[in-house]
Amino acid sequence: MVRSEFDLIRRLQAQAAHQDPHVFKGIGDDTAIIKTSSTEWTLITTDLLAQGVHFDPATSSFRDIGYRAAIANLSDIAAMGGTPRFMLVSIAIPPNCSTTQIQELYRGMMQAGSPYHVRLIGGDTSASQQGLFLNITLTGVVKPRQALLRSGAREGDRLYVTGTLGDSRAGLDLLKSRRGPKLRPADARFLLARHHRPSARVAEGLWLVKQGLAGSAIDLSDGLSGDLRHICEESAVGAEIIAGSLPISPACRAYALARGLDPAQIAIQGGEDYELLFSVPHRKQARFERLIGHTRFQMTCIGSITPKASGLRLRTDDGATQPLPLTSYEHFLRPS
Amino acid sequence: MVRSEFDLIRRLQAQAAHQDPHVFKGIGDDTAIIKTSSTEWTLITTDLLAQGVHFDPATSSFRDIGYRAAIANLSDIAAMGGTPRFMLVSIAIPPNCSTTQIQELYRGMMQAGSPYHVRLIGGDTSASQQGLFLNITLTGVVKPRQALLRSGAREGDRLYVTGTLGDSRAGLDLLKSRRGPKLRPADARFLLARHHRPSARVAEGLWLVKQGLAGSAIDLSDGLSGDLRHICEESAVGAEIIAGSLPISPACRAYALARGLDPAQIAIQGGEDYELLFSVPHRKQARFERLIGHTRFQMTCIGSITPKASGLRLRTDDGATQPLPLTSYEHFLRPS
Repeated sequence: MVRSEFDLIRRLQAQAAHQDPHVFKGIGDDTAIIKTSSTEWTLITTDLLAQGVHFDPATSSFRDIGYRAAIANLSDIAAMGGTPRFMLVSIAIPPNCSTTQIQELYRGMMQAGSPYHVRLIGGDTSASQQGLFLNITLTGVVKPRQALLRSGAREGDRLYVTGTLGDSRAGLDLLKSRRGPKLRPADARFLLARHHRPSARVAEGLWLVKQGLAGSAIDLSDGLSGDLRHICEESAVGAEIIAGSLPISPACRAYALARGLDPAQIAIQGGEDYELLFSVPHRKQARFERLIGHTRFQMTCIGSITPKASGLRLRTDDGATQPLPLTSYEHFLRPS
Repeated sequence: MVRSEFDLIRRLQAQAAHQDPHVFKGIGDDTAIIKTSSTEWTLITTDLLAQGVHFDPATSSFRDIGYRAAIANLSDIAAMGGTPRFMLVSIAIPPNCSTTQIQELYRGMMQAGSPYHVRLIGGDTSASQQGLFLNITLTGVVKPRQALLRSGAREGDRLYVTGTLGDSRAGLDLLKSRRGPKLRPADARFLLARHHRPSARVAEGLWLVKQGLAGSAIDLSDGLSGDLRHICEESAVGAEIIAGSLPISPACRAYALARGLDPAQIAIQGGEDYELLFSVPHRKQARFERLIGHTRFQMTCIGSITPKASGLRLRTDDGATQPLPLTSYEHFLRPS
C-alpha cells in the first residue's frame, strides 16, 4: 500500500502541478501550507482511517480509536513544527455502531486534541453499508517560511528521532496474538499504552522550529524505513542508519527477546510510533546536543544523510552495512 | 439519517461549545469560518461520500461520482458566498477498484473545480475492505463578516431559490428504475445531466454577497424541505412555501406527469439539487428583483419567512396551507 499510495499521489501531483502563489507546499509533504497572511501560514492535513485496515474494534475501544486517529493528524502538524488549531471530522457509520460508541470515538479525538486546545469546528456524518470510516482534517499554523519540510535534508546531516521506536508495533502484536509471548505485566502495559495512546510530538516540533537547527522532518507513521525513504526521495539524498544507536525501550527489547526477533528490525519496520525523524546539519550537531540537554526531550542521533547514490543503508553492530529493509513491517512478523 | 445526523452534530456542538476568538462560525452551518487575517477569512467544509449510500458505480461513471462529490463541497462554499480555493481528497479504495477508475474519480473532481481554479493540495489514500469511500475537504475565502449564514433569516423576508428544483431526483429515479416512464429523449438527457453533473452556484453566491441584500443562505443538498428546516432552526423562524411558485423544469414536469406524481412534491423533497436557497428582506425585494434582471441568473421567489410558531408550511394551489412534508424524498417514490 505504501509504495502504490506514494506512486498514485505522485501521479496526481503531476496532474495538479500548475503553480499557485498562495500555496507554499502541496502534495508530497505531510501537510499542505497555505499562505493565509503575512504573519501566519495555515497548515492543513487530512487522514482517512478504515475499519479492518487501520483499526479493529475487537482489539481497541472506540475512545482509543478516536484518540489514535487524532494523534495521526496532530503528528502531521507536529512534523511541520506547527501549532494545531481546528479539526473537522467525517464519519461513515455502519448499522451495527451505537450512538454511545460514536460519542466515545469523538471523546477520544477531543481528548487527544485537548492539550493543544484543538477545536472541533465541522464535519460530516454518513451511513456506511459496512465498516466504520473516519476522516479527520486538521489545521494548524506556522510562521511564514518556518515550517519543517521533508525536502530539507543535505548530505552529511545527522539524523535524529524523538522517543523510542517499535513500541506501538510490539503493542499491536501483543493485542493480535492470542497466546502472546510472556512479558512482565508492566512491559505489556507499557507497549499496549504506546499503541493505544501514542504521543504527538507537538512540543518537540515547536522547539525544533524555535531553535532553527533542523533541516528536515517527518513523523513516523509508516515506520522508520518507510518514512526515511520519503525524506530521502524529497531531498534527493541517501541515508545510513546505525542499528546499535536506535532508541528502543526496555519493554520493546523484552518483547523482541521473547519473540526471538531482532529489536532493531521492530524499530526500523514498526509503524505508528508517531515519533519525529529529523535532520540536523553536522556543523550544528554539538550545539544542538547541548540544547537538548536543557530540555526534557528524548532525542537520539541514529545515523546520517549520505549521497543519493548510496541509497538507504543499515550499519549493523559488526560494522557491516546492508540495504535498509524495504519490506513492510507486516511481513517479518508473519510466520513464513 | 438527516434528522439523526443533525441531532448528533448538535450534541457534539454542545460539547465543543467553548468560545474561540479565531472561529466566527463552527458546526451548525455548511462551512466553518476561521478568521485567518484582517482582510480575508478562511472557509472550510468537508463531505464524506460512501458507496451504496451516496453513489453507485452501477449507475454512475467514476468521473461523474468524482464530479458530484466535488460539487457537493463547492456548493457549501457557494452557499456562504465564498470563493473556493484548495481541495484535499481522501479515498478508501476497495480491492475491486482499478487505478484507472481512481484516476477517473480524480479527473471528475478536478473538472468540477477547474472553473474556479481549485487546486488539489493534499489528501490521503487507504485500502477499504468493502466499498469506496471518498472524503473531500474544500477551503475557500470570504471577506470578513460578509459570509452568508443560515442564521440570518427574519420574519417577513422573502425566500428565493436559484435554478430549478427536483431535476436531480428525477434523474436518479430514471437511473434506478429499469423500466422508467416514457420521456422524450431530450427530457431524459436533461434530467440525467442534472443528476450526474449538477452545478455549484458559486457565481450566484458571490453575486449575493456583492449586492449585500440576502440575509441568509443554504445550499439544497438534502432537498428544499430538509434544508429550509436548517435555516428555520438556525434563524428561529418559520416559513411558508407557495407550491405554485416553485421553479420546475419542463423535463421534471414531464417526468412527474409520466409517473403520476405531483411535481411540487419532487421539487420539495428531491435532494442534491445544489441550488441556493436564500432570504431577502421584504423592503429590499423590489430592488433585488431589478438587480436580478441585469444578470443571467435564474432566481425565483418561492415563499416567505413566518413566525417560528407557524412552523414550516406549504400553500397549495387552492390557497389552503398544510405542513411542509417532513418525509424524506426516499419515501414517496417507494411503492407503498
